Amino acid sequence: MNIIVQKYGGSSVADANKIKNVANRIKKRVLQNYKLVVIVSAPGKTTDQLIKFAKEVSSNPEPREMDMLLATGEQMSVALLSMALKEINIKAKSFNAFQLNIQTTEHHTKARIKDIDEKIILKNLQEYDVIVVAGFQGINQHSDITTLGRGGSDTTAVAIAAKLKAPCEIYSDVDGIYTCDPRIHPNAKKHSYITYDDVLELASLGAKVLHSRAVELAKKYNITLLCASSFNESEGTMVVNNLPEWLEEPVVTGATITKNELKVTLLNLPKDQSIISKIFDEVSEKNLNVDMISIVSSNDKMFLSFSILEEQREDFEKVVQKALDDLKEWNLSYNGNFSKLSIVGIGMRTAPGVASRFFKALSKINIIPELVTTSEIKISALVPREKAEQALKEIITEFGL
Amino acid sequence: MNIIVQKYGGSSVADANKIKNVANRIKKRVLQNYKLVVIVSAPGKTTDQLIKFAKEVSSNPEPREMDMLLATGEQMSVALLSMALKEINIKAKSFNAFQLNIQTTEHHTKARIKDIDEKIILKNLQEYDVIVVAGFQGINQHSDITTLGRGGSDTTAVAIAAKLKAPCEIYSDVDGIYTCDPRIHPNAKKHSYITYDDVLELASLGAKVLHSRAVELAKKYNITLLCASSFNESEGTMVVNNLPEWLEEPVVTGATITKNELKVTLLNLPKDQSIISKIFDEVSEKNLNVDMISIVSSNDKMFLSFSILEEQREDFEKVVQKALDDLKEWNLSYNGNFSKLSIVGIGMRTAPGVASRFFKALSKINIIPELVTTSEIKISALVPREKAEQALKEIITEFGL
Repeated sequence: MNIIVQKYGGSSVADANKIKNVANRIKKRVLQNYKLVVIVSAPGKTTDQLIKFAKEVSSNPEPREMDMLLATGEQMSVALLSMALKEINIKAKSFNAFQLNIQTTEHHTKARIKDIDEKIILKNLQEYDVIVVAGFQGINQHSDITTLGRGGSDTTAVAIAAKLKAPCEIYSDVDGIYTCDPRIHPNAKKHSYITYDDVLELASLGAKVLHSRAVELAKKYNITLLCASSFNESEGTMVVNNLPEWLEEPVVTGATITKNELKVTLLNLPKDQSIISKIFDEVSEKNLNVDMISIVSSNDKMFLSFSILEEQREDFEKVVQKALDDLKEWNLSYNGNFSKLSIVGIGMRTAPGVASRFFKALSKINIIPELVTTSEIKISALVPREKAEQALKEIITEFGL
Repeated sequence: MNIIVQKYGGSSVADANKIKNVANRIKKRVLQNYKLVVIVSAPGKTTDQLIKFAKEVSSNPEPREMDMLLATGEQMSVALLSMALKEINIKAKSFNAFQLNIQTTEHHTKARIKDIDEKIILKNLQEYDVIVVAGFQGINQHSDITTLGRGGSDTTAVAIAAKLKAPCEIYSDVDGIYTCDPRIHPNAKKHSYITYDDVLELASLGAKVLHSRAVELAKKYNITLLCASSFNESEGTMVVNNLPEWLEEPVVTGATITKNELKVTLLNLPKDQSIISKIFDEVSEKNLNVDMISIVSSNDKMFLSFSILEEQREDFEKVVQKALDDLKEWNLSYNGNFSKLSIVGIGMRTAPGVASRFFKALSKINIIPELVTTSEIKISALVPREKAEQALKEIITEFGL
């Protein structure tokens, strides 16, 4: 049995015509004698509409009920796509998380897949040509519905591909992975190949490429991912462990900006490593995104700076209050209107002078970064938001992206 | 533990404000020390919108997938209502058919409940004040989602009430059961009490009162039903086995019209009882609604007339072709544009002259019924559609409804 796993994003199943288009694409593969497992997201803006409805009903919707609500979107899609497939004489059957026993951790709104019963899939593929699976959702040990976080359908797809040892194709409204956002920079170049590591860095920097957990799983189980468009036949990008040898490796493979960063500064902390642990323990427990951490210390005091997402400010403040409850004299300040500008590339590991070219490009438009962090394959800088787009253009020119 | 089962229809949970209103009504009961099991339908027009979406995708949507699709509506409602309850500090938890193990027969789009695991409800009522249950849906022996037919949430509610031996309250946008449709006839009277049998007759005649299966179950397990409005505090109607003795029993308790009847006539059938059995066997297997059956026979021929719903004409034609496959000379004709006008009342059993008053009222506006059927507690007549409303008004006046 030749199995392919495919995933179609929300924009690919946004209305009846788009669903029929996806059904026809699937049919072509069935006629080539493949069996398909197809993972779908909720149609179009459905998830956003459901979140809006929830917020009208409750100022702070209970996560368990939020997952119960949001999981309906993907269930709609699987039913509708299965109908569309039957309409063109393809034997298809839909599955939700209960029916496929997609087991996850118990954390609502950000659960992780623990196991999927691939036997149910294999058994049904004997009778059906296409198994249509609701992405994004799972069941925890209490039989509660969980969800995997925005973009989680990618992870459902890769987890199933890993279980079935099948290739995985991720279809969306973008026809591959670009050096930078092609909607903003029309000269952006599409990668034919990119490594898991580069995609992970790009995703962690806010580029909406693939769900990070999906890429981690693909890397762990060595699943080749194809990212392509559901609306045309252009070639797409292969995400692989190592680039093919014939491919000349570029130094910098991508540049991104995120728009809603807040710089946080904690002054006058006592010089005590346990305080830092305490803060970051709380931060990780609440699943807050803290980034670009810089610590400076003098004789007996510490000064901490880092960036957080603006919308997490309130949660973050509680965390700090709790962690520093029994301390005095410390001082917390926020500094808004920043964007995080980053470049990524495996080539940076070996190519010298990348940081210097990065800062030179910024200085051309008089930007002195507020915070800087670097890793082996990435450099990020916090820059004033109103200059961020201009800065990105300089970077793109500098590195020929 | 004092348990009340409540059911709220789709119009009661159509938007955020209506959901909050329902939550506040529930809270009042919780503060009176009740534990509640609340069954909800899909919000407002959700089910209609989902059906429309399905029909855009497929000319003849697969019933299994239709149920998978439609079940999402109720799942939305339970999540949203649970959020709204928590927002006002009521401990609530939502359940779908998988989580409550609502077992049904395997027939998609018209399944019947076989069993519900009330232990799950009782266990959760130890911890929560309100259990919110998705109505209308169940699971068959293949772990497929099934639905119970339009209005099926009533049946979910009564089935749970029967299991818990609890009273059952059915809330909608109508504040009780009326002698005739109060939206059309402002002088319609509301019943304080009505019997299960009368409600069953009214429902089978097309009055949108309660899901018939719900009333059958209520009768079987002697569950008292209260039908009332979720939008005001007016008293509602109690549906009971026997009217209280102090209540003067009216002769006729209700009048209804259905709008889309087609008169079917089969001429020149051989006089053979097995043919009639054959037709009605096929009819019941396909779950078609055939009503008002009249049979006239001469020496060697039979003539059959009855009414069907207009939208079932195509299905019906196939049934007849199949049943009469090896016969010749028979002739099938349709006669459209009829409405079925009916009166119902347990009092008719004993009161003389009801039929004569019924026909006299019709003759006042020159109607000669095309077909007539009578039972102990009901009289139905097929009348020209354009005169149906006028006829209903005459009937209402005649019987003081």
